Amino acid sequence: MAGNTFGTLFKLTTFGESHGPAIGGIIDGCPSGVTIDMEFVQAELDRRKPGQSAIVTQRKEPDTVEFYSGIFEGVTTGTPIGFVIKNANQKSKDYAHIKDSYRPSHADYTYDQKYGVRDYRGGGRSSARETASRVVAGAIAKQVLQEVNINAYVSAVGPLKLHKPYSELDLAQTEKNIVRCPDPEVAEQMERYIKEIRKQGDTVGGIVSCVIQGAPVGLGEPVFDKLHAELGKAMLSINAVKGFEYGSGFEGASLKGSQHNDLFNTDGSTQTNLSGGIQGGISNGMDIYFNVAFKPVATIMQDQETIDNKCEKVVMQGKGRHDPCVVPRAVPIVEAMAALVLLDFYLLNKTIKS
Amino acid sequence: MAGNTFGTLFKLTTFGESHGPAIGGIIDGCPSGVTIDMEFVQAELDRRKPGQSAIVTQRKEPDTVEFYSGIFEGVTTGTPIGFVIKNANQKSKDYAHIKDSYRPSHADYTYDQKYGVRDYRGGGRSSARETASRVVAGAIAKQVLQEVNINAYVSAVGPLKLHKPYSELDLAQTEKNIVRCPDPEVAEQMERYIKEIRKQGDTVGGIVSCVIQGAPVGLGEPVFDKLHAELGKAMLSINAVKGFEYGSGFEGASLKGSQHNDLFNTDGSTQTNLSGGIQGGISNGMDIYFNVAFKPVATIMQDQETIDNKCEKVVMQGKGRHDPCVVPRAVPIVEAMAALVLLDFYLLNKTIKS
Amino acid sequence: MAGNTFGTLFKLTTFGESHGPAIGGIIDGCPSGVTIDMEFVQAELDRRKPGQSAIVTQRKEPDTVEFYSGIFEGVTTGTPIGFVIKNANQKSKDYAHIKDSYRPSHADYTYDQKYGVRDYRGGGRSSARETASRVVAGAIAKQVLQEVNINAYVSAVGPLKLHKPYSELDLAQTEKNIVRCPDPEVAEQMERYIKEIRKQGDTVGGIVSCVIQGAPVGLGEPVFDKLHAELGKAMLSINAVKGFEYGSGFEGASLKGSQHNDLFNTDGSTQTNLSGGIQGGISNGMDIYFNVAFKPVATIMQDQETIDNKCEKVVMQGKGRHDPCVVPRAVPIVEAMAALVLLDFYLLNKTIKS
Amino acid sequence: MAGNTFGTLFKLTTFGESHGPAIGGIIDGCPSGVTIDMEFVQAELDRRKPGQSAIVTQRKEPDTVEFYSGIFEGVTTGTPIGFVIKNANQKSKDYAHIKDSYRPSHADYTYDQKYGVRDYRGGGRSSARETASRVVAGAIAKQVLQEVNINAYVSAVGPLKLHKPYSELDLAQTEKNIVRCPDPEVAEQMERYIKEIRKQGDTVGGIVSCVIQGAPVGLGEPVFDKLHAELGKAMLSINAVKGFEYGSGFEGASLKGSQHNDLFNTDGSTQTNLSGGIQGGISNGMDIYFNVAFKPVATIMQDQETIDNKCEKVVMQGKGRHDPCVVPRAVPIVEAMAALVLLDFYLLNKTIKS
Repeated sequence: MAGNTFGTLFKLTTFGESHGPAIGGIIDGCPSGVTIDMEFVQAELDRRKPGQSAIVTQRKEPDTVEFYSGIFEGVTTGTPIGFVIKNANQKSKDYAHIKDSYRPSHADYTYDQKYGVRDYRGGGRSSARETASRVVAGAIAKQVLQEVNINAYVSAVGPLKLHKPYSELDLAQTEKNIVRCPDPEVAEQMERYIKEIRKQGDTVGGIVSCVIQGAPVGLGEPVFDKLHAELGKAMLSINAVKGFEYGSGFEGASLKGSQHNDLFNTDGSTQTNLSGGIQGGISNGMDIYFNVAFKPVATIMQDQETIDNKCEKVVMQGKGRHDPCVVPRAVPIVEAMAALVLLDFYLLNKTIKS
Repeated sequence: MAGNTFGTLFKLTTFGESHGPAIGGIIDGCPSGVTIDMEFVQAELDRRKPGQSAIVTQRKEPDTVEFYSGIFEGVTTGTPIGFVIKNANQKSKDYAHIKDSYRPSHADYTYDQKYGVRDYRGGGRSSARETASRVVAGAIAKQVLQEVNINAYVSAVGPLKLHKPYSELDLAQTEKNIVRCPDPEVAEQMERYIKEIRKQGDTVGGIVSCVIQGAPVGLGEPVFDKLHAELGKAMLSINAVKGFEYGSGFEGASLKGSQHNDLFNTDGSTQTNLSGGIQGGISNGMDIYFNVAFKPVATIMQDQETIDNKCEKVVMQGKGRHDPCVVPRAVPIVEAMAALVLLDFYLLNKTIKS
Repeated sequence: MAGNTFGTLFKLTTFGESHGPAIGGIIDGCPSGVTIDMEFVQAELDRRKPGQSAIVTQRKEPDTVEFYSGIFEGVTTGTPIGFVIKNANQKSKDYAHIKDSYRPSHADYTYDQKYGVRDYRGGGRSSARETASRVVAGAIAKQVLQEVNINAYVSAVGPLKLHKPYSELDLAQTEKNIVRCPDPEVAEQMERYIKEIRKQGDTVGGIVSCVIQGAPVGLGEPVFDKLHAELGKAMLSINAVKGFEYGSGFEGASLKGSQHNDLFNTDGSTQTNLSGGIQGGISNGMDIYFNVAFKPVATIMQDQETIDNKCEKVVMQGKGRHDPCVVPRAVPIVEAMAALVLLDFYLLNKTIKS
Repeated sequence: MAGNTFGTLFKLTTFGESHGPAIGGIIDGCPSGVTIDMEFVQAELDRRKPGQSAIVTQRKEPDTVEFYSGIFEGVTTGTPIGFVIKNANQKSKDYAHIKDSYRPSHADYTYDQKYGVRDYRGGGRSSARETASRVVAGAIAKQVLQEVNINAYVSAVGPLKLHKPYSELDLAQTEKNIVRCPDPEVAEQMERYIKEIRKQGDTVGGIVSCVIQGAPVGLGEPVFDKLHAELGKAMLSINAVKGFEYGSGFEGASLKGSQHNDLFNTDGSTQTNLSGGIQGGISNGMDIYFNVAFKPVATIMQDQETIDNKCEKVVMQGKGRHDPCVVPRAVPIVEAMAALVLLDFYLLNKTIKS
C-alpha cells in the first residue's frame, strides 16, 4: 500500500515533495484511443496554480506538465502515462526556521514520528503541492468521461454561506470570479472577507460543494466500495479536509423517513433527490452532489508558540507565501478527485454483466 | 475489485444475502498467536442483533457465528479465518410484495439496473444484515489491538442532540440504556422519541459519534490513504450513512487559523484537539474522534406510491419488521469498522521504518 | 496481502485447513446473469477428490460443495459467491505423530517458523485439500467463459514421458483412464508404474500439460501481469509444483531466432506456434500451451529420520493415506487455475479500449 | 490493474516507451532511513545498458537515472521515490519499416489488437528498455536488504550449457567476463558462439540461473503468493522469458519421493536442498536457486516474410542494433526482480506475528 496510489482500474500513483526537483505521477489503466487535449490539461492546472489571483498565495510556479509516455501522436495508447511537473520556485531558505521545529496543526510532527526523517522544506510530501498531480490525472479522466459534467464551487468561506441549493444557482458563473462562488453577490462578500482575514495575518476555512450531472446509472461497488464511500475517501484525502456529506448529509440525520424518501417517477427518476443520486452505494441516474469541509490553513502570519524536535518551547514566526483560504484553489482538486472516482467505477462497471 | 473486501493487510471479505442460507466472511492477514475470546465475539454480535430491545426491529435472529478455520486451540494461526452466520429467520414471503417493485430510497432499483438480476428478498446483499460479518471481524481486530479503546455512542436521534463533547461524558454509561447514548437523561428522551416515531409508522435518522483512545502515533498512509480518509470510507460504507466528519469537522470550516490551530505541549501532545488526533493523515497520539450521520430507515409502515419493474405506478404497503431508528444498533458496527481501519494501519506501520 | 486471494476482477479468496470443520471460499467479481450448472461444479470436484481410483489416496471425502450466496434461482447475481466444503473424514489421530515433528520436504517446519504456531493435523493449511476450493471457482469460471476450451492432461509420470505434442493427441481420451494421459498405451504404462511405486512405499513426480483453445486475442496485461506470468504464478501456487514453461519453454533457450520465430499467415495466425499463443505477454489467438512439473509427494510409506521441534533427531514412520503420484488428481486443478487467470484477463480486457 | 505495478508493500510502477522522451517509475513503500548509494544504483544500470561489450547491442544509451523524490540528503524518507531515465538515443527513423508491419514473434500484432493503437517505434512499451526501471528499483531493494546476496549468472547460451551446480562455481567470476558465466572456460566458448551467431545475422536463446543466499526463514505468503510463485511471476514478466523452475525443477518430476526428500539436520537446515530453499511456499533458510529460460531475440538480421496491418504479405529486412543473445544483459534484471520479490515478502513478514 503505502498510500500513494488511488483507484483500481484507472490508477493514479503520485510522487514528489514540494521542494524537490519535481513532482509527478503515473496514470495506469487509461483506456486507449482517447484523444487528449493538452491545453485543457494545462488549463485545469492553471485553475489550481498559486499566484493566480489576489486572494491566493503569491508564490509563482508555472506548473507546466510534461508527459513522458502513454500518449502517442495525441492519443492514449493504453500504456501508463508518466508525467512530471518541475518545481520551479523553491525558496528552501524560507523553511530553515522549521527544520527542527514543528508547526502547529501541520504534519511536521507526525511525519517525523512516523518515518523518523522528513524533507522539512515547505512540508515536503505533506504539502498541498502534491494535488497538482491529481489535477493532471483528473483532466485526463474528464476527457475519457466526456458525457459527465463535474462542477465544484465554493459554498462557504468562514461564516459566509451560500444558502441556495445548487439547483437554484447558475454554475456557469463559478469561474467568473476569483472566489469561485457561483453567486456573484456572495462571491464579492467572500472576497472582501478573505482579504480582511489576510490583512490580520490570519486564515479561514470554507466549504466546496460539487454537483455531478450525466453520470450513468450503476456506478459503485457495494458493499465496501460504495460510490459515496469512495467519493468520501477521495475528498478526505485532499489536504485540510475535515468532513464529507452527500445528498441530505448531516441534516438528513434529523429527518423522518416519510420526509426523506425519494419517490419514483415512472421513468425511474425520483421526484426529490435527498439520496444525492446514490442508492445502496450505486448511482441512480439523478444528480450526485456533496459538500467538502476545509479547515483554515494552519500557517498564519502571526507568532505562535510551539516545540522543536528536542521538545523545547520555541516561538515560530509566520513566514512564506501562503493562502489565506484554500477553497478557491481547492475547486479544481475536488473536481479532479471526483473524476478519478467516477472513471474508475465506470470502467469497473463494464465487467459486471455477463 | 467488486467491492466486497476491506483492508490491505488485515483484510475482510464478506458474502451473503439476508435471506440466503448464510452470511459470513474470510479474514485474511490476522497476525498469528493471538488468543481469541469467542464469547467476546458473540457478545459484540449480540450488541448488533435484531430483537434486542423495544426500540429495534422485532425480528429474531440468533446470529450465532461459527468459525471454520484460522483459529486452532483458541489461538490465531496466521491463516485465513473463515466464518459463517446462518440465516435463521427467513420469512421470505414477507418480501413477495417487492419482488417486482422498487421500494423508495432503497437499493432495489439500482441493483436491478446494475446487475440485471437481484435477490429481492429483504434487500438481499444490500441488507444491513451484511454488517454482522463486519462486527465479527471487528471483534477479532479489537482483540489484536488490546491497548486501543474504541467507544462509539449515539449523539443524535432526529432533532434530539447530545450537545456535550465526548470529554464531558461518561462513556461507561453508553451500554446502560437501549439507545446507547451515554447521557441518561438525553437517552430517555431519545427512547421516548423513537417509540413515538414507531407508533406513527415512521422512522428517524441520527448520529453516531466515536472516540478512539490509546492509538499509537503514526497510523495512516499519506497521501491517499490518510487515516481519516480510510475511516471516512469505512463509515460511509455502512448502510444508511450520509456523512462523516472528524475533529472540528464541518464547524471547523467556519473558523480562523488562529482559533483552529492546536498548540503543542512539550511532550508532543496538544493543548486543544480540533485536529481530532490526526495531522497530515497520520495519528498524533491524541484522541481520535468523529461523527457519522445516518439517514432515517427507508422502510416505513405507511403506504407509499412507487413503481414496479415495468415502470408502472403501484402502491406499496409498509410491511415486515424494521428498525424505527438504526443508530442504537449501528454503534457496534461503527466500532467494528474503526477497529478494522486501525488494525490495518497498525500492521502497515510495522513496515515503514528500516 | 497474506496470500489467500487470487485475481483482480474475478477474485477467489479461500480459507480452511484439512482437518478443521470445513474449507471454502468467496468468489468476488463474478459477472451477473450467468446460469450455473451445479452438477458440472460437483463433477469437477469429483475429478479431484480422493478415493476416485486405485492409484490415488484411499481417503474418502464426499467433497460436496454448498453455495451460500451469489447465485439466486440458478443464476449469478454479481454479488459474492460464498461456498463451503465440509471436512467429513478427519482422522486427526493419524497425525499425532507429526504434532511435534517436522516431516521432511513438507511445510511443517516453515509454517512453525513463520507463524510460531500451526494446525499440524494433516498439513493444515498447507494441505493440497485447499485446492478443492480452487476447483469450485474454476468450475464457475469455465461456465462464464463457455467459448474457451481448457484441457490438461498427464504428460509424464516419473521417467515415463509422453513424447507426442498435444496436436497429435486425442484429448478426448484424457478422462478415459485413471492416469488422465490421453495416449492409452502410455497411460497403461504409467498406471503400472504408479502401482509399483506404491508397493515400494514410495512416490513419484510427474508433469501436467495444458492446452487452451478458443481464447480471444488480447488477454494479458503487460508489463508485469503478462498472460504467461500470471499463468506461471497460478501453476506455481499449486502444491508440489517445481516448474512452469510455455510454448517452446526451456527447449526454446537452445534455439536460434531463425528457427524460433513464428511467421504470420495473412489472417494474423502463425505458421508455427513456438510462442505458445502469447506474444509480449498478450494472447495472439493461437493455442496457448504449457507444462507444469510436480515433485514426488513428500509423504512416503518408509521410515525417515527427521527432527522434532526441539531439534532432536527422531524417526518418522510413513502413515496415513496418501497419493503415490499427484498428477492424475492435479489435472482438474491445473485447468481450474488456468480458468481463473483467463477469466480475470477477459474481464480486464473489457475496460482497455475507450 | 493494467499491469504496470509490481509488489504489494514495496511497490514498483513503471512507465515509458523505448522511443518516447523518457522511461521511469515510482517506488512506493520503501522503508525510511535507508542510506542510498547512488553510485551503486548507476553501476547496476551500467550492467544492463546497451553498448557495454562486443556481444551486446551497439546502441549507445547513457541510461543515467535522475531521482526526483523520496530520498533526502541521501536517505530514504518513506515517501515515494520517483525517478526518470531520459531516452537519449532515439533513432526513430530506424523503425519506419515497422510502422505498419508486424515483426514475427514480436508484440507488434498483439499490442495493435489489444489496444487498437501503438507506439511502433522500437517496440514502444514492449521493448526490453522498460527493464532499466526494474534495475533501478532492484538496486534500491538490494540496499534495503543488505544481508541477502543475490547472484545471477548465465548457465546456458543456445546448446552450450554449464553443467556444474552453483555450489561448485565461483560466483565471484561472473562479472569478470562479458558473457557473465562464472566458469571462464565455458564463458569463452559462449562468447565465441554468440559472435558466430551474430555474424550469421541470427540470434540465440539461453538460461540465466540465480542463487539467493542469506534470506531469512519465513518469506512467502501461502497459499497463492508462495515465494516461488512470486519469483516465477517476476521472472516470467521479463521480456523473452519462456520458463521458470526452482530447486529440482523439471528434473524433480522424474524422481521418487525417497530420492527427493531433503532430510533435516538438527539445526533445521537440510542435508540436501532439492527443495530449492522453499517448503510450502515459504523460505526455509537454505539457498534459494532457480533457472530462467530466455528465447532467442526475435529481431534477426535476415529477411523474413511477414504481414502488414492490412494483412498483406510483405518482406521485412532485419534492421537496427539488437542483441544477438539477451542473457548477458538479463543477469542484472533477474537479480533486480528477485530483490523486489524478496523485499516485498520481507516487509510483509514483519506483520504476521502478533
